[in-house]
Amino acid sequence: MEKNQKIVLANRPAAWVEESNFRLEESPIPEPGANQVLVRNRWLSLDPYMRGRMSEAKSYAKSVEIGEVMVGGTAGEVVKSNHPKFAVGDTVVGAMGWQTWAVADGAALQKVDASAVPLSAYLGVLGMPGVTAWVGLMDICAPKAGETVVVTAASGAVGSVVGQLAKIHGARAVGIAGGAEKCRYVVEELGFDACIDYKAGNLRGDLKEATPKGIDCLFENVGGEIFDTLLTRMNPFSRIAVCGLIAQYNSAPYPMQNIGAVLINRIRMQGFIVSDDLSRWPPALKELAGHVASGRIKYRESVADGLAAAPAAFISLLKGGNFGKQLVKLT
Amino acid sequence: MEKNQKIVLANRPAAWVEESNFRLEESPIPEPGANQVLVRNRWLSLDPYMRGRMSEAKSYAKSVEIGEVMVGGTAGEVVKSNHPKFAVGDTVVGAMGWQTWAVADGAALQKVDASAVPLSAYLGVLGMPGVTAWVGLMDICAPKAGETVVVTAASGAVGSVVGQLAKIHGARAVGIAGGAEKCRYVVEELGFDACIDYKAGNLRGDLKEATPKGIDCLFENVGGEIFDTLLTRMNPFSRIAVCGLIAQYNSAPYPMQNIGAVLINRIRMQGFIVSDDLSRWPPALKELAGHVASGRIKYRESVADGLAAAPAAFISLLKGGNFGKQLVKLT
Repeated sequence: MEKNQKIVLANRPAAWVEESNFRLEESPIPEPGANQVLVRNRWLSLDPYMRGRMSEAKSYAKSVEIGEVMVGGTAGEVVKSNHPKFAVGDTVVGAMGWQTWAVADGAALQKVDASAVPLSAYLGVLGMPGVTAWVGLMDICAPKAGETVVVTAASGAVGSVVGQLAKIHGARAVGIAGGAEKCRYVVEELGFDACIDYKAGNLRGDLKEATPKGIDCLFENVGGEIFDTLLTRMNPFSRIAVCGLIAQYNSAPYPMQNIGAVLINRIRMQGFIVSDDLSRWPPALKELAGHVASGRIKYRESVADGLAAAPAAFISLLKGGNFGKQLVKLT
Repeated sequence: MEKNQKIVLANRPAAWVEESNFRLEESPIPEPGANQVLVRNRWLSLDPYMRGRMSEAKSYAKSVEIGEVMVGGTAGEVVKSNHPKFAVGDTVVGAMGWQTWAVADGAALQKVDASAVPLSAYLGVLGMPGVTAWVGLMDICAPKAGETVVVTAASGAVGSVVGQLAKIHGARAVGIAGGAEKCRYVVEELGFDACIDYKAGNLRGDLKEATPKGIDCLFENVGGEIFDTLLTRMNPFSRIAVCGLIAQYNSAPYPMQNIGAVLINRIRMQGFIVSDDLSRWPPALKELAGHVASGRIKYRESVADGLAAAPAAFISLLKGGNFGKQLVKLT
């Protein structure tokens, strides 16, 4: 008899996440109750925020408890339904965690159309990462035509959308990514104006060259030394959308030297979490869906095969080993 | 024959400002040209921003050149006028620098009424520091009733107004100041709810006690280790108005450890300079003048006697030696 496979948090990481922090378990496939739906998960999304949920430290969301299934966004198919809005065979997205089967309340699921767009896109460019890019760029940075937008982790699920949206809205888009191959992709495939390979070891000089008029909007995903260096290029009245600080999720915080730029250049710096304001999702998804359908926004996926591969893929993501949106193909 | 006394920048400070960075000079009293006014300066304002003007480093305003008169806000009396808006005997404020006499274009001066309010108040609570407090608190922090506002350098020209305005608008006001005497003044005279003496050596513990519900608004004048510690008490969706970072004007930047709070708590941090938006001055001064006239906003002045005392008073200000608005009485 088929079982539900799930990955639980075995123990909390001390610094870098290790595969031993996770444990693969099996349990019976659950039965849906009233107004519930049984879903066979096809895709699991891996995202940097999950690192925070593995810690006990107070953050914006509750930690995963030891022994609990790891949290995560998923896409799958309805197998049984006790909810009037869902029928067997419907494709749905939700937050069903690192497991192959799940029961969820109908209210916690969203039906999506996987005929025109692949189902996995609803975990990336048409899901949380895409909306994150839109909210940070359009609501916080609000770049004007001709301004310079810089985004870190530019080839990733969020960063790739930020730069393409910036171009669509008439800004100069400059990416920062790790490695020549990612930078080539960012410029040649995604159409950014420039990309800096921070691993090339000349960040400060390369940055000056790529941002001759300084930076008007910084969409920050990485933090640490790169963020601190970027602060030195910010223009008067520039904006910083702080979306992620992945460089310090696994280590002591980087000691920032250049926060004085906030005063000198009257910078507005705003941290945000895409789930804070759900009213922004519909306008974001509307614009993104149009650009994806027309081919103006492109996306790329890194796919790990099978649930058992999720821990290694997640660790690689935290180290920048992914190229585009990191997914796990479950079945 | 009476001469103009002026203090010029003799050389740039290497770290801490020294009296030897300044030089007292004399020159003939200038003659006003067309549309100009000759003013005998009575009061000179000393303010932390002046430290920035002594450096060559790029900042929001032009540096003072070596040999030039130090910049500064002044209040005085019109002695000769070639401008239709000003008559001999009018009291005026302007930015006439560290000198006893000055010629200025009429358009660069503002006539003030020194009958109901002392002339010196127009350099403090009813001048740049007061408007700075109002803009940072009302426009950037925008505290709601019941929220907690923390302000550093709480007994100073800006900080004292921030806390009193916060109280008027229904917030809890917590000051941070250096020394028991300043803290006593902040609570007993100015009516703050609490004050932390950072020199007492228990900032973290005292802060927790004084902000049981965390911090919703931080008005930051100081920077450095105090700022970094305050970041750990910020609430979700809190605001930080970055007005000054005096702790690092004379030394290497403090390495900030807690910038991650901006993301975790979705903080909006905004640097500002009060001269960026002159349209905010009239509403600010209108509210402040009402509260000063009614006695709801109190202020205190530290007065140095004579222009020659200005360098030592300025150095003391940078080290927190002033108590209230630092002025120099010129004649």
